[in-house]
Amino acid sequence: MSDNTTNTLDLKQTVGFFLFDCLKKEGITEIFGVPGDYNFSLLNILEKYQYIDFINCRNELNAGYATDSYARIKGMGALITTFGVGELSACNAIAGSYCESVPVIHIVGAPKTMVQQEHKQMHHTLLNGDFDVFRKLSENITEYNAVITPENATLEIPLAIQKAKENKKPVYLLFATDIVSKNVVKRPINLEVKRTNQKNLQTAIKQIEQMLTVAKNPLLISGTFVSRYNLQSQVEQIVQKMNLPVTTMIMGKGSYDESNKNYIGLYAGGLGSKDVQNIVETSDCILSVGTKWSDYNTGAFTAMLNPLNIIDIQPYYVKVGVTVYENILIKDLLDGLLSKVDIKVSSLPTASFPYTENHASLGDDISSKYYYPRFQSMFKENDVIVADAGTFQFGIAELRLPKGATYITQGGWGSIGYGTPAAFGACIADRNRRVILFVGDGSNQMTVQEFSSILYTNCKPIVFLVNNKEYTIEKYLNINEKQTHYNDIPIWDYSKLIDAFGGNAYTAKVYTNKELDEAIKQAELQCQDRFCFIEIYAPQMDAPEIVHKMTNVLEQMKS
Amino acid sequence: MSDNTTNTLDLKQTVGFFLFDCLKKEGITEIFGVPGDYNFSLLNILEKYQYIDFINCRNELNAGYATDSYARIKGMGALITTFGVGELSACNAIAGSYCESVPVIHIVGAPKTMVQQEHKQMHHTLLNGDFDVFRKLSENITEYNAVITPENATLEIPLAIQKAKENKKPVYLLFATDIVSKNVVKRPINLEVKRTNQKNLQTAIKQIEQMLTVAKNPLLISGTFVSRYNLQSQVEQIVQKMNLPVTTMIMGKGSYDESNKNYIGLYAGGLGSKDVQNIVETSDCILSVGTKWSDYNTGAFTAMLNPLNIIDIQPYYVKVGVTVYENILIKDLLDGLLSKVDIKVSSLPTASFPYTENHASLGDDISSKYYYPRFQSMFKENDVIVADAGTFQFGIAELRLPKGATYITQGGWGSIGYGTPAAFGACIADRNRRVILFVGDGSNQMTVQEFSSILYTNCKPIVFLVNNKEYTIEKYLNINEKQTHYNDIPIWDYSKLIDAFGGNAYTAKVYTNKELDEAIKQAELQCQDRFCFIEIYAPQMDAPEIVHKMTNVLEQMKS
Repeated sequence: MSDNTTNTLDLKQTVGFFLFDCLKKEGITEIFGVPGDYNFSLLNILEKYQYIDFINCRNELNAGYATDSYARIKGMGALITTFGVGELSACNAIAGSYCESVPVIHIVGAPKTMVQQEHKQMHHTLLNGDFDVFRKLSENITEYNAVITPENATLEIPLAIQKAKENKKPVYLLFATDIVSKNVVKRPINLEVKRTNQKNLQTAIKQIEQMLTVAKNPLLISGTFVSRYNLQSQVEQIVQKMNLPVTTMIMGKGSYDESNKNYIGLYAGGLGSKDVQNIVETSDCILSVGTKWSDYNTGAFTAMLNPLNIIDIQPYYVKVGVTVYENILIKDLLDGLLSKVDIKVSSLPTASFPYTENHASLGDDISSKYYYPRFQSMFKENDVIVADAGTFQFGIAELRLPKGATYITQGGWGSIGYGTPAAFGACIADRNRRVILFVGDGSNQMTVQEFSSILYTNCKPIVFLVNNKEYTIEKYLNINEKQTHYNDIPIWDYSKLIDAFGGNAYTAKVYTNKELDEAIKQAELQCQDRFCFIEIYAPQMDAPEIVHKMTNVLEQMKS
Repeated sequence: MSDNTTNTLDLKQTVGFFLFDCLKKEGITEIFGVPGDYNFSLLNILEKYQYIDFINCRNELNAGYATDSYARIKGMGALITTFGVGELSACNAIAGSYCESVPVIHIVGAPKTMVQQEHKQMHHTLLNGDFDVFRKLSENITEYNAVITPENATLEIPLAIQKAKENKKPVYLLFATDIVSKNVVKRPINLEVKRTNQKNLQTAIKQIEQMLTVAKNPLLISGTFVSRYNLQSQVEQIVQKMNLPVTTMIMGKGSYDESNKNYIGLYAGGLGSKDVQNIVETSDCILSVGTKWSDYNTGAFTAMLNPLNIIDIQPYYVKVGVTVYENILIKDLLDGLLSKVDIKVSSLPTASFPYTENHASLGDDISSKYYYPRFQSMFKENDVIVADAGTFQFGIAELRLPKGATYITQGGWGSIGYGTPAAFGACIADRNRRVILFVGDGSNQMTVQEFSSILYTNCKPIVFLVNNKEYTIEKYLNINEKQTHYNDIPIWDYSKLIDAFGGNAYTAKVYTNKELDEAIKQAELQCQDRFCFIEIYAPQMDAPEIVHKMTNVLEQMKS
């Protein structure tokens, strides 16, 4: 009836061990979460399981964000929460993973089977005897869910993991506390995997080939799903073979090597670079690989693209102009393109990058005119760049990333507060890569306690926090009322806060461009050894050009 | 199409103004929340609405907790969040309000009507064109929900508020950003209210009278719903007329004046006082008013009560022994009892209170043996006592409260982290009452940023935080594995943290009983002027007797 049977002898036969073994096979070496009595039986086994560490976060929302970020780097993430209170705290993060197409396995510990069957009024329930309500709630924000039993574990766990992998979505698995230490009932399983319809593929490739062959100035957009399905090298081969110019949008940023000569910069419709906008919007054939066509991703729908010119490659279909070819795996389509299409663009268009040169004076008070180009110049190969929702999300998107860099942001879901825990998740995912976080004070206040987890686990990101007493982006978005107070926030001393969290950190407060320059140099030296935290005292309403353009667009839309 | 029509002339005709007027009628003078672009049109009107202030919290979960606590004091609370990201972050708090029967109006700002109708891929959505998914999700954790339009506003808003009031549950109202500043279409409404079936009432009263008349040692349990339906004075009249001994359980604590001679102490089944257990469990007639029969509330189901002896009065029915009488309003039942039942108990049983005397030595290192009785001796009339989930929730429940005190805890939902924002909500609900918060470090780390809101709004609670590097209660509950590490947490310097949040505060760190005594004396002096924060460095696993008893019970259940 309880997990007192978890001795070392039969541990390997248990439901819990089976679960962790399945996750290990997916490359998961850490699981995030928060303990609670209904998940103790899971954590008790996990603490004995030698291939995966449990990473205890400061709350479940933060754990969910960290898991999402981890999954973007490692291919999959897993999160353990407790029934009701824990899982619901995480559900903004889970919905975010759904929106942003990130495969996360959400593992929830539940009351004992017998207690559920008797509909007892247990803590962490609604006290109405309903033990199925949170699973039902999760249906709205996950791809798949299952209540695990010893009898179905060897079927349902692999199936859920496969659904997460195939669809790049979160899934939900519920474990009553008593079943975790029971032995699994082994049974043969035969998971059906999605396959490409070869006929559709051939017809599609033929039409795409025709379009590309007659195109005068074709172009490739590298989108979100290029990263999610790990298609970077296939895309790169296509780009090199056809010599295509490449752009990314905010949600696809980092999916293409921006140090490559074919990269022309960020496309953000009417909000970004005019050069890039011109190149993209005059292209007569856009090979779009795994792009999401959302509002922020299209520059608040200012992207003016002729649908007839787009080859819109999605995970399981491709739309060529107005024709949709279904049941084609994105990987197979790219393989087909590479082997069948034989074109080569003769010359690449030229576009300038907005932050390559720094025209600001070192002696001036700090402003975004200086810090964006300064950030770009500090980037180095394989950095993980994390930007929280807010002005940074737009500004950083226009920086040119170095080779091997990963860019992590919520360009679709846009939940402020994501950044800090996401930086933590990235640090845990790969301790050999440098993680740089850009976060505003408003965002950081949402999830600040995860700085403590960063310090506790000896992670060493470099953090840039703009301290300017407001939700700046919200003030820009609030086009009808300029004088509201509700977007003001309390002033904190963030460096003192880092100290209160009790870790070994380099902290600096910068008020001028010169001080930022010096602090960056210090951080570059010290980040081998410790967490580096730079607090930027920027003027209120300081924002990059792209944010000003967005306000203009919103005002035009209003009138 | 947008809210640029909100000039002062027609403001009073708008959907937004109507909403706030309805809330004002319920006594709401503050609304908690976090701004986000989809709720700007609501906040723009609220900022102009002179009778209600917007209280900006550090994140939505905290705002939800603060609203819940506010509602416990003021009778109703309201929360404003933004679509998707904001509302989901709050849903643990909303589910908590459901579980604990607290009426909260959850107001959510959504994308423009036109954008929804076109199924555009907007930020803060799942990017699948589904704008109804979060409302559907909310159905699982609210009593009622509605998508507001100018045409239905004057019907749906009052109806939702009534459902919240009648059932003491949260409700959910969705406002597309463009409809908030449109004029309401006024229409006559006729809300049906629940009424008592007089025949059922008379029959029930007759049976109850018979039971009470023959009872040798009747007793009253004052439960959660006594506070929620504001029945304290009716209950007190019954108690005085019949001279009944009165007990409360954890979830009902504070619903009865504990300074009254009829109060015998907390009943927690086999976990609490033996005296009280004996009195309650040998009673031949228990008049239970609005009690929830959940696990923690019944001492992990150790309460041994004969159902045949219980008159179980619930909001809309009463169960007398095995007979259920439906459709009886709790208020009407109490009125009937008071006018029809004419008994008087001759003498009250005596029970001792565990923390009335302090046997610990002032010179010793701090421990719960000292601090529980010391806390009890510092309480004064009309204090609001807030205890977070954890060891404090059990320990504080055994303290005898002073006259007029309110006790706020989540005895059913038990979400750790509730306490700190709940203390904030209590401060905002009544700035003339002293608020005292008891919180553990593990709980506080979940929601610590709300200390900043407390400081920012110049609230002055007295906070006692136990700093002992662990989730102590979780270690007690984890009966199968004593040596796990996952319940350890980082060490913070909380006093330094208060300083980093930038407020005017008295802070103290105490290591001995004497230091606590002195710090309490200081806090009593200083709490008129500022936030007082006392950090208690207790030894690990320090816990009151009731927690040790719980572990024993769980171990017995296991075997």
